[in-house]
Formats: sequence, structure tokens, C-alpha cells
Amino acid sequence: MIQAITTNEIIVSEKESVTLPKGYKAGGMHCGIKRKRLDLGYIVSDVPAAVAGVYTTNLFQAAPLLVTQESIAKENKIQAILVNSGNANACTGEQGLADALTMQKEFAYEMGIQDHLVAVTSTGVIGELLPMGNITNGIKQILQKEYENEENFKKAILTTDTSTKEIAVQFTIDGKTVSIGGAAKGSGMIHPNMATMLGFVTTDANIAHEDLLSALREVTNTTFNMITVDGDTSTNDMVLVMANGLAENNELTKDHSEWDVFKQGLQIVCESLAKKIARDGEGATKLVEVKVNGAFSTNAARAVGKSIISSNLVKTAIYGTDPNWGRIVTAIGYSGVPVEPTAIKVSIGPFTVFENGLPSQFIEEEVKEYLESENVKLIVELNQGDSCATAWGCDLTYDYVKINASYRT
Amino acid sequence: MIQAITTNEIIVSEKESVTLPKGYKAGGMHCGIKRKRLDLGYIVSDVPAAVAGVYTTNLFQAAPLLVTQESIAKENKIQAILVNSGNANACTGEQGLADALTMQKEFAYEMGIQDHLVAVTSTGVIGELLPMGNITNGIKQILQKEYENEENFKKAILTTDTSTKEIAVQFTIDGKTVSIGGAAKGSGMIHPNMATMLGFVTTDANIAHEDLLSALREVTNTTFNMITVDGDTSTNDMVLVMANGLAENNELTKDHSEWDVFKQGLQIVCESLAKKIARDGEGATKLVEVKVNGAFSTNAARAVGKSIISSNLVKTAIYGTDPNWGRIVTAIGYSGVPVEPTAIKVSIGPFTVFENGLPSQFIEEEVKEYLESENVKLIVELNQGDSCATAWGCDLTYDYVKINASYRT
Repeated sequence: MIQAITTNEIIVSEKESVTLPKGYKAGGMHCGIKRKRLDLGYIVSDVPAAVAGVYTTNLFQAAPLLVTQESIAKENKIQAILVNSGNANACTGEQGLADALTMQKEFAYEMGIQDHLVAVTSTGVIGELLPMGNITNGIKQILQKEYENEENFKKAILTTDTSTKEIAVQFTIDGKTVSIGGAAKGSGMIHPNMATMLGFVTTDANIAHEDLLSALREVTNTTFNMITVDGDTSTNDMVLVMANGLAENNELTKDHSEWDVFKQGLQIVCESLAKKIARDGEGATKLVEVKVNGAFSTNAARAVGKSIISSNLVKTAIYGTDPNWGRIVTAIGYSGVPVEPTAIKVSIGPFTVFENGLPSQFIEEEVKEYLESENVKLIVELNQGDSCATAWGCDLTYDYVKINASYRT
Repeated sequence: MIQAITTNEIIVSEKESVTLPKGYKAGGMHCGIKRKRLDLGYIVSDVPAAVAGVYTTNLFQAAPLLVTQESIAKENKIQAILVNSGNANACTGEQGLADALTMQKEFAYEMGIQDHLVAVTSTGVIGELLPMGNITNGIKQILQKEYENEENFKKAILTTDTSTKEIAVQFTIDGKTVSIGGAAKGSGMIHPNMATMLGFVTTDANIAHEDLLSALREVTNTTFNMITVDGDTSTNDMVLVMANGLAENNELTKDHSEWDVFKQGLQIVCESLAKKIARDGEGATKLVEVKVNGAFSTNAARAVGKSIISSNLVKTAIYGTDPNWGRIVTAIGYSGVPVEPTAIKVSIGPFTVFENGLPSQFIEEEVKEYLESENVKLIVELNQGDSCATAWGCDLTYDYVKINASYRT
């Protein structure tokens, strides 16, 4: 099950994502929000877990986000996450808030725990009330053995996604095996600073809330906040990390000698999920990675990366396998970062296409061929300093238009 | 020729745009940059004219912009504008700069005027050197009578545009008839704060440079800077206004009793050109207008308007005639303006779709039918203050992807 891919001492497994860490169960079922596909899922921990969350910056936060944030604030612990897809419970007013609270209360009742230990979250169509009859019925059954299935959980959180998104890693802290697992969904409305994106990360590490939150925020800035599909930041984005301590390591803090191993593990999990979301962007045929080096600050590097990865013109050119470096250079020029045009070098994969303020000599057919691959890298050297950043996104295709001209988010 | 449409005392003509004001000639020809279509054009004034310009904020300003800005700085007057399409002379280094200077010098020679009285500008593919042999040949002939034709000028400045864009207005200042005419191009890479957009405005008004510039900047903020097609701000954008004084009104200043009439005339010309550019956005089937009312500041109103008009999800929904108010509300929520979600009202044309934090009762089929029209209006009431703004854009279609996956900008 565990694959032999390692980064330092961190072993990456692609299976048993959110249930690889000790003491977690997950499941999913069809309760009747969507026509046929799975639409209700849960993750539960055997014991209350420290929790950290990051949430959409959209002012129209959906009802479940309000409920979850308020609940977490009580003691910074949760024991369960309940998710529905097919309906975002956003822009649903007082009734929406009441519905989110009902979801929380009823699932807590089934588990026999306090309400505030249940996080609730929703994704799907905006502005329609949840079909509470179906959801309530679902909640009554979902903890039954037949629905306990980690694969079902990953499916139950999807909307226009074409594939499930998961990863798990293992490493050693204080001689104890620690695992981090993650599952995510997200396909449209994906933009830096969260998106219609849900990320659920579980770990059995022993770590206090404050340190977990600090690690999550740091890692989110270089992962989930660096992806874009369409520039729209949704009302429902949320990443939650649960840490139940069952690995029995000494409590992790920034002063722990193996703090960096944990943070790197979390980074691998979040980066992998973020890239999978970008790769599965609505209508996408390619994962695009933009690496920006030599910036005078990390924020400058991020701004240039986001500007390029968000450009519809760059995205359509990549779809059309057109080595159109002019559009990349244009996007650098309007990023808001004071770059020096003649100092910049731009490469498409291994091919330098722009340098010293001029197009480079390159063989168009070679670059076109490179652009046909499923993973396209654009590399920008700003030559202004030592900071760097990476952004991920996808190409813009006919299918993006097709999906969004007809699908009701 | 002059149509009977009036706004106050301002008469709108749709014909003889840049040559309606006294003392202007315009022309265009095919010199061989493009395969077949016209690609070189000029506007000349009988006498040197006061000039005001606004330019792209992209750091990679193309060579002709550098040359033109430097020339204008000399005495704030020009007598001629020379434009080529098919090649942007952008990212072309020292040679590009030399070529722009050659264009300027040779056209000045043909006219028998000083070099700095000629503004040069280019639009088209980025990063290729101009075919100077063809351009030089063209310059030698273009002032011949056979090429003098205002229609040809408007055609010679186009790239992926599907139609010419022009307007002219007339009004009275000090009892003298004053005219303002305008022509523009722009279809892709269109975004607030200028775009691959060229705008040329002529007037016979007598007005000093400083006042002309102040009027142009003010009007640009509510017109050219409020349109978007794809969020990309190009390297070559420029709007130039020439004022040659041949109408013989007393010099216009802000203290002139009829200053507002002039400014309104300029506003009508620039707004009309801006809307025509948005309407002709690459692949567009609809002009979309977003009106934002009740903001606490004009900048806030503009930010909300731009956020909505720039949303790929809103644009695809309009293409698909989907009354997807959720995407509009989402775009308001991430605009960066601190709005009050429950205070907002959103309408699609005459239909209220969102109010008091909740979707309104509306008949889906009626709104769908409205969205089938070629002019779609979205109205947002923020209920926070008295400021308002209007933004224009277009829908996002299969053809946008098609054009940009294959066309080399």
C-alpha cells in the first residue's frame, strides 16, 4: 500500500488518505441531494482532535462556514466533519443557518458527542435550501457499517470534479510513526485565497491548536492559495486539519527538534491536493506550473506567478499548444510588481523563449511539442533578488465554457 | 449624415468620425504587414494640435509608446498620428525603438513637419520586428490622394476586431460649432486600465494641453478603464486626443461657462468607443453592462463593477442564458469592497434576483429570455452610500477560446 516514494524521511502513500492516521474513520452515501451520485460524507476521530481551519475570504460566507467557525472557537477541538455536496447552503439566510445547525446537531446526536465537536460544510449550487428531509434521513444511517468507506467519502464531496483527490504521508517523530492524510474537492471557482475548494486533512500527530493553525496558514499560502482555475473565489471554501494525538509523539511545537519534518509532511499533503485540484480544473487538459525565481520578495514572486497563471490568454495559448511567450511577458508586465523588463528570462519547460528584453531563438515545433504534454512548466527569472514562488493552474478550453454555460453553481 | 439623437445640446453623428472636426484628414492602405487587409493608417491635422494621451500601465510598454510619449513631452503638440496593425513592435528591444523612430522620422519627412509632431503607434503580434521595408514604402505613398479615406483609417487599425468603431458629436461653444470625433480598435487583451486598445479622438476645439489632459483622464476613468474582455492589460494601449483649435471658440478652461458641454461631448465619444470595444470582445455575442449603485465611494462602486464584469463564471453564465445570480453575488463578495451581504439587491435587467440575503422569487424562463438579448444589464444596489459606477464587458464563449488558442497576439 505504501509506495516507495520518499522525500527525506517522509514516505508518500497514495492510498487510505484520511484514514491512514490512527483513529479515523470515513464514509459516504447517497442521501438524495444529487440525482444519483454520493452526496453525504463524514470523517470521525475516535477522540476529540485539535483542529485548525482556513476559510474563504469571500464576504458571502456560506451558512456552514459560520456554524463551523463559531463551533471551533469554543475549544479548538472537533471530533467529526460532516460534508454534503450538490448544494452549497450559501445565500440561504436564516433558514440556511438553521439547516446547518440542524445538520450539526443531528450528526452529534448520532455520534453521542457535543454539537460543537461537529464541523459541517457544504458545496454545490448557491442559493437553494438544503433538502433537509433527505439529509436528516441520511444522517440517521450514515454511521452504519455499510457506509464506512474512505473511497465513498472522497466521492461524496465532489461536484464537477472528474476524479477524487487524496494523498497520505508517514514519517517519524520522537520515534513514533506519524501519518497525515488528506482529501479535497475543487474544480471550478478556484482562485488564490481559497476557492470552491474543500480540503480535509487528518493526522494522528500530537500537536496543540495554535501550532497546528500556524503550520496550516503557512502551508496554505504556498499551496491552496497558489492555485487558480478561473479567478473566482467561492463562498464555501474551507480547509480543516484534525490532529487527534494518537501517534503519541511528544507534543509538537515550533521548538520541537522535528517540527520541520511535520511541517514538510503537511506541505507535501497540501501541495499534492492543490495540484490535483488545479489539474482537475473545469475543462482542463493540462496542469500548468509557474515557477517564479529571483524576486525581491516572496509576495512579489507570488504576485507574478498568480498574474501569469490567471491570464485567460496564457491559458488558451497553452490549450492551443502555442509558444506565445508574448502573453506571458504581458502578464508579468501588469502584475503590479515593479520588474525590470530587460532583466527577465522566460522559459517554457526547457526552452528559453525570452531574454534581455527580446525573444530568444527557439525552434517553434520543439516548444509546441513540449506544450502537448499534460504537465506544462513555465519558469520566470526576475533577477531582482532571492525570493521565489510557485503557482499552479490549468489551460482554458472549450469544455470550460461548456461546463459553465450550462452547470448551475 | 447627422442623426437626430441629442443629449442636451450635443448632437451625435455616427459618420465621418475623426474627420468631422475641421482641419483633419485620415487615410489607410495595405502596406504588407498583414496578408491582405489594411495595415497602415494616419490622421493629420492642417495645423499643430494640442494633444493629451493616456497609456497602458503595463511595464512592458511597446517601443512606439516610448517614442510617442517622449515626443509629446517636448511641446504637448502633435500634427499627425501614424498607426500600423498586424505587428505591435513590443518586446523588440533596441531595434524596435529604432524602427519606431524611423516610422516617425519618415512620416514627418513626407509631411514636411518636425519629427516630434508625429505620434506613432502599433498593434498586433508581440515580439516580432516590424517589416520596415514594407512600412517605409507605405509611408512614401500613404499621403497620396487615393489613400485619403476615413473609412480606410478605421479599418487599418484593426486586429481581431470584427467591426470598425467610430463616433462623432457636435455642439456649440461660444456660438461656434465644435466637433469631437473618435475611432478605436480593441477586441482581446481588454481590461480596466487600458488594453490592446487604441483610441484616437480629434476635435477642433480650442483648448490648452493641461485642460485637455485633465478632461481625458477624468473621462477615461469612467469609460476606457471600465471595460474588460479578458482581464489582460496589453503592452500597447494608448488613447490620444488632438485639439487643433480650428473651431475658433475662446480657449476652453475649467472656468469656461461651457466647459461641461465639452467634457460631456468627450464623455459621449469615449463611452461609445469603449462600449463598442466591449461589444466586439473576442468571441462575444453580447454586450454586458454592470451598473453599481449605492456604494460608499466611487472607487468601491468601480471595484464591485469590475469584479462582476471580469468573472469568467458570470460571463459563461450569460453566454448560456443562465440566470445564475449566485455567481454575481460571489463576485461581489470577493471584490475586496466591504459590502453588507444582507443589504444588497441584484437585478438582471428588470428582474430582481437577490435581495435581503436571499434569492428573490422570479420566473426562470422570463429571465432566461431576457438574457438572450444582445444587451444585458446587471444592476447592483449596495445600499451603503450615494456613489455609483458602470462597467462594460461581454460574455465568454467557445469562440473566445477558439480565437485565442490559435491566434498569435
